[in-house]
Amino acid sequence: MQRIINDPFNCVEDMLEGFLKTHSDIVVKTDNPRTIKYKNAPVPGKVGVVTGGGSGHKPAFIGYCGKNMVDAVAVGEIFASPTAKAFLDAMKEADSGNGVACLYGNYAGDNMNVKMATTFAEEEGITVKTVVANDDVASAPKEEKEKRRGVAGEILMWKVGGAKAAKGGNLDEVIAAAQKAIDNTRSVGIGLTSCTIPAVGHSNFKIEPGTMEVGIGHHGEPGISVSALKTADEMAQEMLDIILPDYPFVDGDEVVALVSGLGATPIMELYILYNKVEEILAAKGIKVYRSYVGNYFTSLEMMGATLTLMKVDEELKELVDEEVDTVGMKQFK
Amino acid sequence: MQRIINDPFNCVEDMLEGFLKTHSDIVVKTDNPRTIKYKNAPVPGKVGVVTGGGSGHKPAFIGYCGKNMVDAVAVGEIFASPTAKAFLDAMKEADSGNGVACLYGNYAGDNMNVKMATTFAEEEGITVKTVVANDDVASAPKEEKEKRRGVAGEILMWKVGGAKAAKGGNLDEVIAAAQKAIDNTRSVGIGLTSCTIPAVGHSNFKIEPGTMEVGIGHHGEPGISVSALKTADEMAQEMLDIILPDYPFVDGDEVVALVSGLGATPIMELYILYNKVEEILAAKGIKVYRSYVGNYFTSLEMMGATLTLMKVDEELKELVDEEVDTVGMKQFK
Repeated sequence: MQRIINDPFNCVEDMLEGFLKTHSDIVVKTDNPRTIKYKNAPVPGKVGVVTGGGSGHKPAFIGYCGKNMVDAVAVGEIFASPTAKAFLDAMKEADSGNGVACLYGNYAGDNMNVKMATTFAEEEGITVKTVVANDDVASAPKEEKEKRRGVAGEILMWKVGGAKAAKGGNLDEVIAAAQKAIDNTRSVGIGLTSCTIPAVGHSNFKIEPGTMEVGIGHHGEPGISVSALKTADEMAQEMLDIILPDYPFVDGDEVVALVSGLGATPIMELYILYNKVEEILAAKGIKVYRSYVGNYFTSLEMMGATLTLMKVDEELKELVDEEVDTVGMKQFK
Repeated sequence: MQRIINDPFNCVEDMLEGFLKTHSDIVVKTDNPRTIKYKNAPVPGKVGVVTGGGSGHKPAFIGYCGKNMVDAVAVGEIFASPTAKAFLDAMKEADSGNGVACLYGNYAGDNMNVKMATTFAEEEGITVKTVVANDDVASAPKEEKEKRRGVAGEILMWKVGGAKAAKGGNLDEVIAAAQKAIDNTRSVGIGLTSCTIPAVGHSNFKIEPGTMEVGIGHHGEPGISVSALKTADEMAQEMLDIILPDYPFVDGDEVVALVSGLGATPIMELYILYNKVEEILAAKGIKVYRSYVGNYFTSLEMMGATLTLMKVDEELKELVDEEVDTVGMKQFK
């Protein structure tokens, strides 16, 4: 394990300390060491936006905390849900009296802990409504969409929900916008190498050299097929063949496209993949309204990439265009 | 080689196509396929800022092209200098009649090609002055500073030079600011794994598991020591023990700190490293004025990190604070 760490059991604490030191212009700590917040949260008059999840996915989740995006984040161990208490404290830190939108990913631990936190928050007089991201097409068939995991599409959900809140939307309007964003979003990943949780010391899954795993999850959850390693162009085609029919995305549609590396893939290669993605979309009459390419949602040192498409209408375009100032995404108006 | 590529000999072209598609709001192509420019270049009345270098270091070099930073970039093959023609065309694209500052790194190929390009540019009536980055402390002893390579400190040189140009500095003032930035800057890297150029297909150097190479260059150039893998805290100490006495940085100084991953190291670990760096600096009375932590200057899929410190005074602080909108660095005023 060639890693830059101290005690493998203390990585999240060490990382959080460094993160808070580096980004004190955007985020600050709270009384709960596993809850961080936007330095101006709660923002008076604004619906609070909260998320949370396991560590190891940087810049997700804490990297999307900041102006016009997420107000407070619950931080879990590596690849493990934050506690209900961390979610509850995030809700409290984000609430300005206008309610809280908790926008998170569909994983058993997160579902359980958000549910508990919501109950506790309500007892304290905070109104919480939730949207559960389930954009990973490969994680369950369309008929069982409620079983699908949330992956990089969560970023677009936070972007849209955060923008709606920033523009003065009430809680129901923020929830509706975030729900619409994730309903319009589909993702799929391809894994080329595995990754190792420092405290475990060895990988829990394996991808043989010369092969690739299509549909792999953000924690190495099994994909839908293992095949010989293909070219970037073939990967782009295979990913789009999975995503496009699922929504469906059709001729005349406009989309936001997001290609994220899984951690260790050179950034150059993400652009090589995106180059073909946009070419295929253009040939089908699907226009890319805006694209994001980079390490937006990673899985430690996995090699591979995810492709996410969100169909956009005028409302979603306006929200996606909103200025944001976070660690993981900075966007000028 | 678990990679997302097509023809290994065509990676740079494929990447550039994807890059230009993704970031058409910031950069555009030119008549030379190996020269890209800021969409608003040449900026009327402003000194042009140019750089260039080999590919595989993303977001360097093209990722720093944009508002208030670099106006045009010459693009080389992976780990190889751009041609003199590419540098010349970048100079032409950047020049608004106020001269061009070419700010680049100290490598044999770049030195030769920039020199030729400068001669050709002068023949066409464009005034070009240069600053050569040599921030890598490990690459030569202090007495032979002119032999040292440029590494991640180049980013701070571009940031400062670009800001001076944006604020209306004339060519001599831009050159002086960029020279001051790099003179005040020291870097060192630690490598944990090697990397592979796709067209070569195997690594040209090796770092044994369980070891680390201190002082390694951005292309795997040999470092100053190989030792057993240490903890993050020990690495931070070792890096600072090399950097601090070289300038020197002393009690009462203020610095900009930049920790960059080399490509495949999980971002979490960069924060773990930075956490200790800031702690050691604080104990020595050295204040971090601003810090950058992330994948700012990579070497394909190498694991490891570089640490860069720039001593700042009021002039440099004002320039570092200038707003920038590039792919690799976005900073609100």
